[in-house]
Amino acid sequence: MIYITRRETFNAAHRLFKPEWDDAKNLQVFGKCSNPNWHGHNYVLYVTLKGELDPTTGFLVNLKDLSKLIKEKVTDKLDHKNINLEVDFMQGRIPSTENLAIGIWEQLQQPVSELGAALHCVKIAETENNFAEYYG
Amino acid sequence: MIYITRRETFNAAHRLFKPEWDDAKNLQVFGKCSNPNWHGHNYVLYVTLKGELDPTTGFLVNLKDLSKLIKEKVTDKLDHKNINLEVDFMQGRIPSTENLAIGIWEQLQQPVSELGAALHCVKIAETENNFAEYYG
Amino acid sequence: MIYITRRETFNAAHRLFKPEWDDAKNLQVFGKCSNPNWHGHNYVLYVTLKGELDPTTGFLVNLKDLSKLIKEKVTDKLDHKNINLEVDFMQGRIPSTENLAIGIWEQLQQPVSELGAALHCVKIAETENNFAEYYG
Amino acid sequence: MIYITRRETFNAAHRLFKPEWDDAKNLQVFGKCSNPNWHGHNYVLYVTLKGELDPTTGFLVNLKDLSKLIKEKVTDKLDHKNINLEVDFMQGRIPSTENLAIGIWEQLQQPVSELGAALHCVKIAETENNFAEYYG
Amino acid sequence: MIYITRRETFNAAHRLFKPEWDDAKNLQVFGKCSNPNWHGHNYVLYVTLKGELDPTTGFLVNLKDLSKLIKEKVTDKLDHKNINLEVDFMQGRIPSTENLAIGIWEQLQQPVSELGAALHCVKIAETENNFAEYYG
Amino acid sequence: MIYITRRETFNAAHRLFKPEWDDAKNLQVFGKCSNPNWHGHNYVLYVTLKGELDPTTGFLVNLKDLSKLIKEKVTDKLDHKNINLEVDFMQGRIPSTENLAIGIWEQLQQPVSELGAALHCVKIAETENNFAEYYG
Repeated sequence: MIYITRRETFNAAHRLFKPEWDDAKNLQVFGKCSNPNWHGHNYVLYVTLKGELDPTTGFLVNLKDLSKLIKEKVTDKLDHKNINLEVDFMQGRIPSTENLAIGIWEQLQQPVSELGAALHCVKIAETENNFAEYYG
Repeated sequence: MIYITRRETFNAAHRLFKPEWDDAKNLQVFGKCSNPNWHGHNYVLYVTLKGELDPTTGFLVNLKDLSKLIKEKVTDKLDHKNINLEVDFMQGRIPSTENLAIGIWEQLQQPVSELGAALHCVKIAETENNFAEYYG
Repeated sequence: MIYITRRETFNAAHRLFKPEWDDAKNLQVFGKCSNPNWHGHNYVLYVTLKGELDPTTGFLVNLKDLSKLIKEKVTDKLDHKNINLEVDFMQGRIPSTENLAIGIWEQLQQPVSELGAALHCVKIAETENNFAEYYG
Repeated sequence: MIYITRRETFNAAHRLFKPEWDDAKNLQVFGKCSNPNWHGHNYVLYVTLKGELDPTTGFLVNLKDLSKLIKEKVTDKLDHKNINLEVDFMQGRIPSTENLAIGIWEQLQQPVSELGAALHCVKIAETENNFAEYYG
Repeated sequence: MIYITRRETFNAAHRLFKPEWDDAKNLQVFGKCSNPNWHGHNYVLYVTLKGELDPTTGFLVNLKDLSKLIKEKVTDKLDHKNINLEVDFMQGRIPSTENLAIGIWEQLQQPVSELGAALHCVKIAETENNFAEYYG
Repeated sequence: MIYITRRETFNAAHRLFKPEWDDAKNLQVFGKCSNPNWHGHNYVLYVTLKGELDPTTGFLVNLKDLSKLIKEKVTDKLDHKNINLEVDFMQGRIPSTENLAIGIWEQLQQPVSELGAALHCVKIAETENNFAEYYG
């Protein structure tokens, strides 16, 4: 069993906001992260796969294929976007770092398996101080 | 002459957008950075001061005073904000990294001189790949 | 199950030193890390929690609450201190990176559970080249 | 059970290349990584050990001993070398990041056990975006 | 006057080697950097431009144009290549970090001026510990 | 004219403290940095040289010679030491980051000139947020 990780980045706007709550309640729970005019981050995404080494190539999977897949399924949908308004797989979810990790996992699990490996972990850093990890 | 630098960070939303242009023209010039629904960044700010060392303290200025000043004049106004809509000193300016550096310089030049040093450089990184520097 | 991590920093002095041994023996085992006049580090601390996502907020726990807790229980006690002489929870322990990880774990395990999550890992970097991790 | 990690670096040349294939087939599978004139990387290696803390020293193992061991068994053999041509433990293997992690594991497993700990993980970063991990 | 910097990366093989000298002399002067079987690095390149801000766009130059230019003139020629054997603008030069900075400067000076700015600095990091800068 | 930089690190203890002042006054001016029991840092030092390229080698100076010189004159004196008590060239000086940069400059200026280059800048980072630079 071998593990490989690909790092990708995207820049996006978001707002922590629960539609069922009024602004005062959102502000109380989410603080400045609930600013109605949005704020944003340079997100750093780490996608880890596990599986058996292919003895023909010495690869688990070709990292170029993985990078292309992450761009197609995840970062092209998120980069320079508003996560609350424009990202299909985040609709109906508060765009916390935790929910982003889960949403990205759901985007990648099936396509990664078609590359011949299993998705092991989606890790996402919102800032240099805050990370979330999801293992399914 | 000695130089000291304080690093601070802030997270904000913005859009590269010229009101005199329609969306098609903005998109042509600014690309995805002009997304009408905004995007955002973890900005990293480096403020460099120069001057004579104070022989009593071994400091140019106390970096705690500098940090407090940057927070008050700059990062409290930018952090978790929309630069286009909510930041007083950026009104009427396209929020490019270059204009941010100039805007921040203007906020800091006079207050820094009251600390007993001269503002030497404002450097701002929008991503790990893009920086702007302004020396006045 | 979701995992979140908060990064915090502190700067402290220490000395690897066993009181039962004389200076020659301490020097033999610990080398320059046993300098009687102390040395110090910029420590980087990563605290990882695990648990079920709160569907109301999209959070495992609010990272601001976690940051506040780490400051209160750990970094306020360590920052700009002498670990051998001034840190209550490190008394009687050689302040190796390993023992720091264990000591910080003991400080956080109970309070973290009151936030509604389980402490998963305490990771501490003494330098850019040396880390310790403790999982309880 | 405690975990410690030592970070080491080395700079080397390599080529992803399967001798049984002709250049066209190698190029098709490995792309520019198969350039016959070689290319190279600044590799970053993380070696993680696990075991019981030695109560006498507060160490799992002395990180200086671990660093010396990694240099002797691994990085002195790789640093400023051509991995395909000059590294004994990589002969007969395509020098992918995955195979490097496995090869380094095999070099370290027995010697690390003589230090009084178990090898837990070999992680190697080929670039800031690509990592492999091996746990045996 | 405003300064902007674009960071780009490339991975390449090289050898410090003076054809007029025999291997013994090369080894004596360049040490392990003269290994006849090559070694390599993940180079990090910083290209800094200076000039007057364009008031229409808030840009000195569009960093996408600069990035495209650097790729075309510099990094596409260097990435996954052997600097001694395959890079036209480095022929006849020992591929030290200093000479790389000068060679890249010569590639960029004229094309950058056509973007409407002046090339200010080419900085290149060979490792995390070694940099060269050239200002023309 | 070419510029080269070597990065080195050292870990040390210090205390911002003016012997002419009592503890209350020291605490008022220097805050927690004046803790009588010391604290410490992982310092990062950048030494930049300038001069004419040696056409024979493609070097300004051999970075191995520079690294050896910095170790001998600077970091061997500082690493794992107490800057206030044990570092000869810092005696009689408050060990602020500014004074460290000046003290290190004075240690290196003459020896660097014997390598055939001029010392251009000593930059020292006390933390990831605080730097000082001295250009003589």
